[in-house]
Amino acid sequence: MNPINNTNLHIEKASTSKIDAVDFDNLNFGKTFTDHMFMCDFENGAWQQPKIVPYQPMSIEPSARVFHYGQAVFEGMKAYKDDDDRVFLFRPDENQKRINTSAARLAIPEFPENYFFEGLTELLKLDSAWIQKGKGNSLYIRPFVIAIEPAIAASPSEAYRFMIICSPAKAYYTGTVKVLIAEQFSRSANGGVGYAKAAGNYAAQFYPTSLAMKKGLQQIIWTDADTHEYLEEAGTMNIFFRIGDKLVTAPNNDRILDGVTRKSILQLAEDMGITTEVRRISVAEIKTASEKGELKEIFGTGTAAVISPVSSFEHGEKTFTLPELDKNSYSSRLKERMLNIQHNTGDDPHSWRYEVK
Amino acid sequence: MNPINNTNLHIEKASTSKIDAVDFDNLNFGKTFTDHMFMCDFENGAWQQPKIVPYQPMSIEPSARVFHYGQAVFEGMKAYKDDDDRVFLFRPDENQKRINTSAARLAIPEFPENYFFEGLTELLKLDSAWIQKGKGNSLYIRPFVIAIEPAIAASPSEAYRFMIICSPAKAYYTGTVKVLIAEQFSRSANGGVGYAKAAGNYAAQFYPTSLAMKKGLQQIIWTDADTHEYLEEAGTMNIFFRIGDKLVTAPNNDRILDGVTRKSILQLAEDMGITTEVRRISVAEIKTASEKGELKEIFGTGTAAVISPVSSFEHGEKTFTLPELDKNSYSSRLKERMLNIQHNTGDDPHSWRYEVK
Repeated sequence: MNPINNTNLHIEKASTSKIDAVDFDNLNFGKTFTDHMFMCDFENGAWQQPKIVPYQPMSIEPSARVFHYGQAVFEGMKAYKDDDDRVFLFRPDENQKRINTSAARLAIPEFPENYFFEGLTELLKLDSAWIQKGKGNSLYIRPFVIAIEPAIAASPSEAYRFMIICSPAKAYYTGTVKVLIAEQFSRSANGGVGYAKAAGNYAAQFYPTSLAMKKGLQQIIWTDADTHEYLEEAGTMNIFFRIGDKLVTAPNNDRILDGVTRKSILQLAEDMGITTEVRRISVAEIKTASEKGELKEIFGTGTAAVISPVSSFEHGEKTFTLPELDKNSYSSRLKERMLNIQHNTGDDPHSWRYEVK
Repeated sequence: MNPINNTNLHIEKASTSKIDAVDFDNLNFGKTFTDHMFMCDFENGAWQQPKIVPYQPMSIEPSARVFHYGQAVFEGMKAYKDDDDRVFLFRPDENQKRINTSAARLAIPEFPENYFFEGLTELLKLDSAWIQKGKGNSLYIRPFVIAIEPAIAASPSEAYRFMIICSPAKAYYTGTVKVLIAEQFSRSANGGVGYAKAAGNYAAQFYPTSLAMKKGLQQIIWTDADTHEYLEEAGTMNIFFRIGDKLVTAPNNDRILDGVTRKSILQLAEDMGITTEVRRISVAEIKTASEKGELKEIFGTGTAAVISPVSSFEHGEKTFTLPELDKNSYSSRLKERMLNIQHNTGDDPHSWRYEVK
C-alpha cells in the first residue's frame, strides 16, 4: 500500500523491466507496452481504489458487456522528453475532459479528474525510461474505459474499468498519404456518436478503408452521410485544406471529433498570421480549387500523426494531385511549431505544455 | 481430444454443473450462464481448433483491439424444448449468415458454417438440461466475435475469438412498453453499420434511452438521421404498425437490421391473410392515424422479446395512446403462432424449426 493524496493510489512495481528487450529504432506502433498500467474499477455506484500494477493480461468474463454492446471510449495522448530528461504532456486537461464527454454519450460514468491526473503522473514517473528523447519520439498514452459487468441484456453496464496503458512510439505516419473521398460509406450520423471517441466509431471505418487500400490509397476523408457533398474528417484525424493562403477546416458538430491537435493548429496558424476559416467545405469546392491550382495543401491532424500531409485525393474515380510540399508549407511550419512546443524546444505562449514531476 | 467430423472440435466437460443453484423462476435476463461455452480463435490467417470448455473468465490483454476500436459483432438466438424433451432452434441458418454479414462490414473474417453448427449443436447437447420446457421459457444463445490482437493501431485486428455463450431466459419483456419517437438522437447513418449487429450500435443507444426512461418511457423508436420524419426501428427490435387492418413495417436498408423475427412475422401475417406493406412510414402518418382511431397496434419484434406491444408513443412532447389489446390483436395472434412453431406445438409450414440432435 502506497497511499497518495486522497485517491489512495496503490502501486505495485514490476519486479523486472522489459525495456532492455525493446528495439526503439524499430517500433511497430501500438504493439509494445511499458512495464506498468493504471486501472480503476467502477462498482456499486462508485470508482474504487485506483492501482498501478505491472502491465499484464486481465481476467474478464465472456459476458462482459463491452464485448456485446461496445460500451467503450478512449483517448490518445503523448508524453515527450526534452534533452534535460524533463517529461511533458500536451494539453492533457483536454483529453481528461473529452474522455468524460465521450463517456457521458455512451452512458458510462465520468472518471474523477484527480484520479486521472494522479494515475497518469505516477504511471509516467514509473515508466519514464520508456520515453525516448528526440523529435518524433514519444510515449503514446492510451486511457480507456470498458464495461465489464458480466450481463448480456442490452442496457448500460453497472461495472466499468478505467485503464491507462502506454506504448513507445516513433512518428505514426511517414511521408504523405493518398486519400479517398467517401461517396458511399459514412462514419457518423446527425444525432449519433461521431463526436465521441467511442470504440465502435473506429471498427465501422475499417472495411471502407480496406476497400480504399485495395485501390492503393491509405485513408478515407469522410463526408456528411446525407449528401456526401461536405468534407468532415479523416476517421483518426481532423482534416485541413489550404486554399490560396487560407487554411480551412470543418466546424465541430455532433459528427466530428473535437480534436486537440485540430484546435491547437487553428490557434498556431492564427499566431503565425495565417487566415483560418472554420466552415463547411464542399467536395466541389476543393475539386474546383485543385483544378484552378488554388488548392495548395491538405493535411490531417491528430495526436498520433500530429500532421499528416495528403499528396492526392480521389473522388468520382478521378484523382486530384496536390503540389509537392517544401519546408515553407503550412503543414511543415505548423508541425515544426507543434513539435517545438511538445518537446520543450520552443516558446509555449498558450501554456499547453504540462510538466510531469 | 474428441474429434468430430472435420472441425476437430475439442470438448472439455465441466466437472460439476452449476444448474442446481439456479432459480429458473427468477431469472434476470442475461446474468446466468450455462456450464459450457464454445470458442474458436482466428490467428495466422485461419480459424484454429474449435473448443467447448467450461464457462469461465478468459485472459485478455488490455491492448486487445476490441476494447479500443469496437471490432465486435454478435447474434441472438434461442433454443426451445418441447414436452418430449426435444430441442429446437428457430431459423438458425439466418443467424449463421447474418453474423458473417455483420463481420464483413467490420472487417472481421467470416466464421465457417460447419464450425458454427457443430459448435452450437454440441454445446446445446451438453447443456440441454438448461433449456426449460414451457412457452416463454428458452435458452438464449449468444454467438459473438471479438478482436483480441494486443495492438492499438487503428486498423483491423489480425486475431479474433468466436464464442458462443448461453443464458436461460424467461420472456424478455412483460406487458406493454411506452416508447419515445426520436427527434434529436440517431441510431445509424446512410452508408454506416446500422444493418450489422455491431457492438457499437448498441452502446450508442444507451444514453438517449436513459433520457427516455427518465420521462417514464421504456424504448426509443429511431427515425432517419436526416429528417427524423421516418420511422425505422427500435434499437433491439424491428417495429410494426397496424393501420386499419394493414400491417406495415419499414423496408430494410443499410441502417436497419434485417431481423429474423421481422421477416418471419411478415410471412406469418401473409399466411393468416393479413395485408402487409413494407414501405417507409412517416411519423406524421402514424400521428394522423392515431388521431383518426386507425392506428390499432404498434409492436416491436426481435429474438429476445419475440413481440413486444407498445401501449403509447410520445412525439413533440405529445403522447398518443394506443387501444387496449385483446387476444384477437395481431400481436397476440402472431406471437402465439411464433411460439407454437418455436416450441413444436404447431405446424411449421416453412420448415423454420431445426431440431438439435
